[in-house]
Amino acid sequence: MVTLREVAERAGVSIKTVSRIVNGETAVNAKTRDSVQAHLNSLNYVPNHAARLMRGGQSSVYGLMTDAVATTPYSVDIVRGAQAALKEQNQTLLIANSNGDPEQESEFWRMFQAQRVSGVIYASVYHRSQDVGHPAFKGSIILANCFANKGDRPSLVPDDEGGGYAQAEYLLKRGHRRIGLLTLNPQIEATRLRGLGIRNAFRDAGFSFDESLDRQGVIGPLNNEKKVAFEAAVKMLQHNNRPTAIICGNDQVALQVYSAAAHLDLHVPQDLSIMGFDDLTVISENLRPALTTVALPYFEIGRQAVELMREAKNQEDGWSPKILVPCPLVERESCRTLN
Amino acid sequence: MVTLREVAERAGVSIKTVSRIVNGETAVNAKTRDSVQAHLNSLNYVPNHAARLMRGGQSSVYGLMTDAVATTPYSVDIVRGAQAALKEQNQTLLIANSNGDPEQESEFWRMFQAQRVSGVIYASVYHRSQDVGHPAFKGSIILANCFANKGDRPSLVPDDEGGGYAQAEYLLKRGHRRIGLLTLNPQIEATRLRGLGIRNAFRDAGFSFDESLDRQGVIGPLNNEKKVAFEAAVKMLQHNNRPTAIICGNDQVALQVYSAAAHLDLHVPQDLSIMGFDDLTVISENLRPALTTVALPYFEIGRQAVELMREAKNQEDGWSPKILVPCPLVERESCRTLN
Repeated sequence: MVTLREVAERAGVSIKTVSRIVNGETAVNAKTRDSVQAHLNSLNYVPNHAARLMRGGQSSVYGLMTDAVATTPYSVDIVRGAQAALKEQNQTLLIANSNGDPEQESEFWRMFQAQRVSGVIYASVYHRSQDVGHPAFKGSIILANCFANKGDRPSLVPDDEGGGYAQAEYLLKRGHRRIGLLTLNPQIEATRLRGLGIRNAFRDAGFSFDESLDRQGVIGPLNNEKKVAFEAAVKMLQHNNRPTAIICGNDQVALQVYSAAAHLDLHVPQDLSIMGFDDLTVISENLRPALTTVALPYFEIGRQAVELMREAKNQEDGWSPKILVPCPLVERESCRTLN
Repeated sequence: MVTLREVAERAGVSIKTVSRIVNGETAVNAKTRDSVQAHLNSLNYVPNHAARLMRGGQSSVYGLMTDAVATTPYSVDIVRGAQAALKEQNQTLLIANSNGDPEQESEFWRMFQAQRVSGVIYASVYHRSQDVGHPAFKGSIILANCFANKGDRPSLVPDDEGGGYAQAEYLLKRGHRRIGLLTLNPQIEATRLRGLGIRNAFRDAGFSFDESLDRQGVIGPLNNEKKVAFEAAVKMLQHNNRPTAIICGNDQVALQVYSAAAHLDLHVPQDLSIMGFDDLTVISENLRPALTTVALPYFEIGRQAVELMREAKNQEDGWSPKILVPCPLVERESCRTLN
């Protein structure tokens, strides 16, 4: 490990001068600075972060702890959004993926504390309530895509109810009245909220939703589900009073509904309109016709989590806003207007 | 920050005794240990990692630096595989995502060095050659899904040539002779290698590949490509001597070919067999019929990268094996045997 002393000897200046330059002080002769900097570079001097941490400072590193987000295709955009916001300030993000294991999380909280990260974004793969944090960790914690059990931490969650409302409103405005649902697992908060939004859109438009068209696209316990959307869609579409549109719990369900339509020689959107949720682009942009869907605003949640982290520094203990981030509808070609 | 002294005072023992317990020494009275541990827990003592690092030790933390892997649905399994291998040894993985920005990478190398991570896995989103590392970083570096420009670092890459061979061999064995290709960007190494494998499989089976059926599924520069697989497939399938099977550059291309078949009222696999690459399960498991494809062995690459890292510690400088990890064929329902 190269020390300041070695650099000073090589450059023929005092240790104090090298130290000033390393710490970015400006009151140093420009020629001296250039010379010392050249020696620092050629010796590959690494600022001794550990020493700085010992003196109790905070690093310019933020942490992102996830239960599975960093390894899940749906939600990696939270990471991307947070990084984009941090990059503007030359701050870096260290990502720790716990797989939801409490022991592993405990270890990460201690590690983040030992490394004096300025704050941690805790991102969850499912919109749900969480018990987050550790007595050893003293920095700010912002919850992304989840909220605290006791409501006592700042959090950002997608407006799933608004997203469901947008799905149904879009189809109702285009003349659809007989609309089928293929939902996600009833255990997740998003399913309940989106279902509420869909029914509110029907009510506001003055129509009633036919509850017999509400079917599950997946069955079984969370994380061990069976995909049944294809079979459920085929059954729904073989009915003599079949729906003109199907609202899907996510884009994977929508993909199965496209397959069901193809199986029955029905064309999208001429014979059937299909609406997704998530905007998982590997699906939505590759389907033909491309999928009209409602986007989970993960990039925006990541970006705003960084903003909230900065704001948290100037707030008192107990400050815990719960922010709903809108889910925008992304219009492509899978829904048509009925004549 | 709670110190050993405070814990010792509360527990009524010497600092040396507390220190022994924190460091896991066993020659301590069990009752004393339980009592001290209880005080450590109630005071939320955090072992001073920074102090340990100052003394020049290595942490039990590994680093994973990526150009985009942690934010790309295709390759997050590299992270999952590395974590699974580390978990067995109670070691943790810190993930740093550079977005391929050289300045950001330089910062991460310095940070990993300052934090004394034991070694770093550098994972790339594309199978290609890379100039990786930083003079400041002294630990081991293993390349995953890429290889060093000068061939001077241990690396793990998927056996793309073998994967292409498996795609064609599977269809040839089932009686297909007229097989179309819809390839990825010709700039990526995988495209060249898979094409080679496909042609070798034809040669070994004693058949010739019709080069007029080799079309690009994407056009334009890397990272700003236009998807043209749907249009290319429709054209290929409207030909009066249309192929009985199409080999796709990846599962996203395959999804577009399913859409092309549906557009033409052709059924999969009765009228057309479709073979993917990647095994991106959000696509391959949701298509009906489910997609037969060749898997990119990302989980295995991540797992073996950790093994290679351990092995590297006992090797001399310049040790640089390049390991080909097989790409297994995943059989589902999208390819049929011709009569």
